[in-house]
Amino acid sequence: MVKSEPDYSTAAAQNAHLSRQRPYPLAGLLVIDLTHVLSGPTCTRMLADGGARVIHVERKGSGDDTRSMGPYLTDGSSEYFRIANAGKESIALDFKDAADFDLLKRMIARADIVVENFRPGVMKRLGLDPEELVKQNPRLIVASISGFGQYGPMSQQAAYDTIVQAISGIMDATGASDGPATRVGTSVSDIVAGMLGYAAITTALYAREKTGKGTTVDVAMLDATMSLMSQDLMTSLGLNQVPHRIGNRHPYMYPFDTFACQDQPLAICCGNDHLWSLLVNALNHPEWQDDVQMKTNDLRVANWQLVKAHLESVLQTKPAAVWEQLLTSAGVPNGVVMNIDDTRRLPQVVARGMVKTLPDGNKVMGNPLKYGTWNSYGLQTDAPKYNENENQIRTEFKE
Amino acid sequence: MVKSEPDYSTAAAQNAHLSRQRPYPLAGLLVIDLTHVLSGPTCTRMLADGGARVIHVERKGSGDDTRSMGPYLTDGSSEYFRIANAGKESIALDFKDAADFDLLKRMIARADIVVENFRPGVMKRLGLDPEELVKQNPRLIVASISGFGQYGPMSQQAAYDTIVQAISGIMDATGASDGPATRVGTSVSDIVAGMLGYAAITTALYAREKTGKGTTVDVAMLDATMSLMSQDLMTSLGLNQVPHRIGNRHPYMYPFDTFACQDQPLAICCGNDHLWSLLVNALNHPEWQDDVQMKTNDLRVANWQLVKAHLESVLQTKPAAVWEQLLTSAGVPNGVVMNIDDTRRLPQVVARGMVKTLPDGNKVMGNPLKYGTWNSYGLQTDAPKYNENENQIRTEFKE
Repeated sequence: MVKSEPDYSTAAAQNAHLSRQRPYPLAGLLVIDLTHVLSGPTCTRMLADGGARVIHVERKGSGDDTRSMGPYLTDGSSEYFRIANAGKESIALDFKDAADFDLLKRMIARADIVVENFRPGVMKRLGLDPEELVKQNPRLIVASISGFGQYGPMSQQAAYDTIVQAISGIMDATGASDGPATRVGTSVSDIVAGMLGYAAITTALYAREKTGKGTTVDVAMLDATMSLMSQDLMTSLGLNQVPHRIGNRHPYMYPFDTFACQDQPLAICCGNDHLWSLLVNALNHPEWQDDVQMKTNDLRVANWQLVKAHLESVLQTKPAAVWEQLLTSAGVPNGVVMNIDDTRRLPQVVARGMVKTLPDGNKVMGNPLKYGTWNSYGLQTDAPKYNENENQIRTEFKE
Repeated sequence: MVKSEPDYSTAAAQNAHLSRQRPYPLAGLLVIDLTHVLSGPTCTRMLADGGARVIHVERKGSGDDTRSMGPYLTDGSSEYFRIANAGKESIALDFKDAADFDLLKRMIARADIVVENFRPGVMKRLGLDPEELVKQNPRLIVASISGFGQYGPMSQQAAYDTIVQAISGIMDATGASDGPATRVGTSVSDIVAGMLGYAAITTALYAREKTGKGTTVDVAMLDATMSLMSQDLMTSLGLNQVPHRIGNRHPYMYPFDTFACQDQPLAICCGNDHLWSLLVNALNHPEWQDDVQMKTNDLRVANWQLVKAHLESVLQTKPAAVWEQLLTSAGVPNGVVMNIDDTRRLPQVVARGMVKTLPDGNKVMGNPLKYGTWNSYGLQTDAPKYNENENQIRTEFKE
């Protein structure tokens, strides 16, 4: 079956919430983007979505590492680079070349924000110590995103997303209770660190407007991923117990889990007896409501495997989409376990502009930060070709 | 084995980065917190970490839903409520009582920020339409966090974290290729929506300082979770292919995976031939370097099951902690798959203040946003008892 391709442009154009003409909240800000790969570029992409001007400084020669990482489009360009760097400008500089380094220093002197994600200490070795940069330009915000942070015993250790996921506890928390620890199937440690880098920068921007003072910013992938673990921390810090992964179900409510249908699984969430009664009636098994093994939430939690078997005996007779319609009409909270290739086609996703078409015809992720007053569509320009904006930038920032 | 309990207080006190005396970046801001459960309280907790004053308005009678959700401490109070609401004040109001509602309106009239996470439409029915509130007080920022957003065909659907994880594609992306779709083992959709709510509010605060204008903010759990899916979106948008989950390994590099040791698994990430040679030498199997089935990255990716079996045949002879030391000395990027109960005891986590002790003796998550200029320790007061600050707030905001 060929899936229909939504017209993301028309949907966005018709939606007042997504007007491209509205002023941007970060208009007028200049960002010097020294980042590479994913965590840093995620942060600067959010700045571009807010309307800041982002100049991505790439390493002369090969450019950002992701330019030579797949997947690749038919023209040979990297989709990885594109999706992380849309809306930015590009200049390639050789930091060891005196003229290039002076240009970079002049760019930083006129900037509001510098973002970098080198290993801690590299900026200092390059002659760009963040604390020194802020001393030289007291209104500057210099944000560093790293694996473990700018200080502490692990600060120099290599940090890939998979390593930080391992150390943070999120892998150990994910998966079936009788199965292995499971990596979250996306680079959540990189991306959340980029998001919190953005949050710290905007906080610092507000404080700068109030006080005139800039600052360094230090955001770590490990700190960011730990911030996602508040629920298991309750068990560890509050009860002094070791939490254990329990698959897809809720520890204290049932049915609150995913269930096999004829095709895809379906998530069903019934946190009380009223929703349970709506569910069993929708499945045409009203007698389950008074079953001595299932009639209260406590019983259903204790006998969850039995409850799951009962529900799946019915659910497996029809596709998930059929049950979704039926249960939604009945008022039972549910959602199909979808592949992102289906998610991105949902009318809700289209209406929210969470995918958008750029002038080059390629599609990218939309802006999740939506405002009544400010531009919520986000960046509107294509990812730059390597060194695409060199001439203009060299002229603009000449001595 | 009894694990040692780190002294979080001393570590923080000794660290200049975590000085509790530094000024807060959000000092002087008043937040009226109408949120409940997790996504909204995560956002307002971050505002409290930034030094804003947060008044958590609870429903008269039962209070925030999490007050009656486990886990519970020995005094019967909810650890769930505590960890999500430390640093805030509490007043219980009956929105249907005219005097209470007038008090609330006076509080909002003096506020900088209102945050709510009711289902879309509820604020309007309560007489608190966000757009109206901003019209009445043009500098006000009113942030709404919801499952699917304030508009669109799904906006009225029930959204629990598990349902949003299902629909967003993140469950489908997580787990072994031959196993089931797997829920991320923490409420990642709730928490990331809270984080992006905070990011949107601080963006709006900056824009308000520049322009004098407030705004509504509309952040959705589905949009937020989709924002984590940029890698699978590359496959879907760029290649027009359906991505498939592949367990813990990297699609294009090997060994870049988790490996069974004698006890816990260990993540090992070797993205090039140099790191591979360091690894095989550290494992005392230099002959694997020239093995015709493993000598290049492409071969190792194609034969990953064989490579994994070879590596695990050695790794399973000793505990993960032993290999961690040995491989780290050898320069091989690695990390033990840890339970959060071990993560929180890491010297790095202690040094970063990512757990801290409050005056009541309880411990909470630290602040992941660290600044050179501003307070990075975060909130310093206990979670409020139900209605704890009523008298003071009624006096302060009387007619």
